[in-house]
Amino acid sequence: MSSEGPFGSCPAPVTERDVVLLGHGSGGVLTSRLLADVFLPAFSNPILARLDDQACLELEGARIAFTTDCYVVTPLFFPGGDIGRLAVNGTINDLAMGGARPRYLSVGFILEEGLPLEVLRRVVASMRDAAFEAGVSIVTGDTKVVGRGSADKLFVNTSGIGLVPEGVELSARRVQPGDAVLVSGSIGDHGMAIMAARESLGLEGDLQSDTAPLHGLVEALLAVCPDTHALRDPTRGGVNATLHEIAVAAGVGVEIAEGAAPVREPVRGACEILGLDPLSVANEGKLVAFVPEPLAELALAGLRGHPLGLESVRLGTVTAEHPGRVLVRTILGSRRVLEQPYGELLPRIC
Amino acid sequence: MSSEGPFGSCPAPVTERDVVLLGHGSGGVLTSRLLADVFLPAFSNPILARLDDQACLELEGARIAFTTDCYVVTPLFFPGGDIGRLAVNGTINDLAMGGARPRYLSVGFILEEGLPLEVLRRVVASMRDAAFEAGVSIVTGDTKVVGRGSADKLFVNTSGIGLVPEGVELSARRVQPGDAVLVSGSIGDHGMAIMAARESLGLEGDLQSDTAPLHGLVEALLAVCPDTHALRDPTRGGVNATLHEIAVAAGVGVEIAEGAAPVREPVRGACEILGLDPLSVANEGKLVAFVPEPLAELALAGLRGHPLGLESVRLGTVTAEHPGRVLVRTILGSRRVLEQPYGELLPRIC
Repeated sequence: MSSEGPFGSCPAPVTERDVVLLGHGSGGVLTSRLLADVFLPAFSNPILARLDDQACLELEGARIAFTTDCYVVTPLFFPGGDIGRLAVNGTINDLAMGGARPRYLSVGFILEEGLPLEVLRRVVASMRDAAFEAGVSIVTGDTKVVGRGSADKLFVNTSGIGLVPEGVELSARRVQPGDAVLVSGSIGDHGMAIMAARESLGLEGDLQSDTAPLHGLVEALLAVCPDTHALRDPTRGGVNATLHEIAVAAGVGVEIAEGAAPVREPVRGACEILGLDPLSVANEGKLVAFVPEPLAELALAGLRGHPLGLESVRLGTVTAEHPGRVLVRTILGSRRVLEQPYGELLPRIC
Repeated sequence: MSSEGPFGSCPAPVTERDVVLLGHGSGGVLTSRLLADVFLPAFSNPILARLDDQACLELEGARIAFTTDCYVVTPLFFPGGDIGRLAVNGTINDLAMGGARPRYLSVGFILEEGLPLEVLRRVVASMRDAAFEAGVSIVTGDTKVVGRGSADKLFVNTSGIGLVPEGVELSARRVQPGDAVLVSGSIGDHGMAIMAARESLGLEGDLQSDTAPLHGLVEALLAVCPDTHALRDPTRGGVNATLHEIAVAAGVGVEIAEGAAPVREPVRGACEILGLDPLSVANEGKLVAFVPEPLAELALAGLRGHPLGLESVRLGTVTAEHPGRVLVRTILGSRRVLEQPYGELLPRIC
């Protein structure tokens, strides 16, 4: 499997006979195209057009962040977490990437007829625990049931509301040439844990999802570096998709050093077996930060001072050259283009 | 099919071997039980415990309503609307029932691999139109794709944020004996339109969904009757489920007059053929209002002054007797208990 994904040679979906592909949900090229072709033209408004992970709204003087995510991960339970914890943490993280303090979540369930109630109870208990640990309240909800075979067990939507403190202004638009690019720890853990949990692969070892709520880490960063330009949690499509997303949104290039991102040994091994690049594998408890160059060391120290950021490192630099592209500087000093993930490397990862 | 639904004689789901039934998504007894047994104990907090259609939050002085809904209606397109319009209007209505002015929506899609992109485009265009007509903006979103057979075509989640004007205080808790119960027009239209659109039933005639955004109607009502106690949109389980929900939440009884609610002729005919009670059939563009008795005529006039409330009528009265129960006073003057819908009359109605 190349980093282009199985649909690397598909024609672009432009005729009305075209259909939804798994890759449209991958966070890669196909996802960007769906956004550009279908959603943005229809729902055009200045807030959505920012393409941040959350909408930032002004409501009677309050600065409110608002976000939504659907979760279809399979299996429902995996080493290090489950769909419930993932849904709570994931929505918290989308709020946190806007600098917001997460406050309230909604939860919507789509259940397949025949799902054991015990499974639902476990997922709900996990959401309760994750919400409690992160200090957010689940304040409204909805449940729908569909017949057997019309859904795969259980899907969750979580939407969230947070408060953006005064002075905080995080957005892809603020990223500029010269910015340092940081990552808050090892990459690829979540994606490879999901792969391992799908028994058919027979992978073993201590692969564990890194799912975690990142708002505390963001607060630690903003305390020392309030002028941070942008934050992203590199979920679907991994750090690779995130860097491309920022490069396109901000009209800049990104250059990273080969091997700069920490990769845990079992993740590296599993990636090698499967021919995957850890840069393109999903994370659920890491962030990528874009900070002004002079503040890079301070920001790193801030991240490392938090339990979730101990292994933070510098990944690279934002450039004025090659806008929209991501380059990897190899150990020998040459540069190669990092291909954006095209379709689906790992379906239903979140 | 009795008004108890096909699971009328099922044992109560209390052991851990029990499974999710279609009826758990019906808005009836099974839904209430799932809420009471699984969700409320886990997510307990004072906001959720109010059991209103929306959470009312105080955020830095702003009074914010927040709500979420998943949509799994089948077919995706039906006379009078489609899943996109339904999702936008439905979430607007949940906000409006709290007296909120709807402002911002999120949208989350779960798509089945192989869905024609043209179907997605039509749904998105419909959401755009419905949002524009109602004056709300879709500001954030998410898309997931699952493999063929893991979902039925397309599911939507819409979550919404609105502003609650000062002085407005709508909640089931405020309903009290003596309150008049009003309904804003004919009942059962949405449910029977969906039934007719499922070809296998071979129903014909001009059955049309009543899907509509109700915030304008609510404003018209509150302008003349700011002391309205509670509002509900009688969706799943119809007016029947709504009256039971309020009766239980407020610890009151409700008594309605037989035949008081307007039922359009094709709806009445289709209900007779199928043995359904229009009181238990879903609406998507009607509201039920609980207002102080002395203001009942004023409130009715307010509702009738709006295009969506022309056929508003008084349905009955809230009583101190028989708390938690709904009684129907027959034309002959006797009273009978209206059975709460138990399971699923019409699966995947919204």
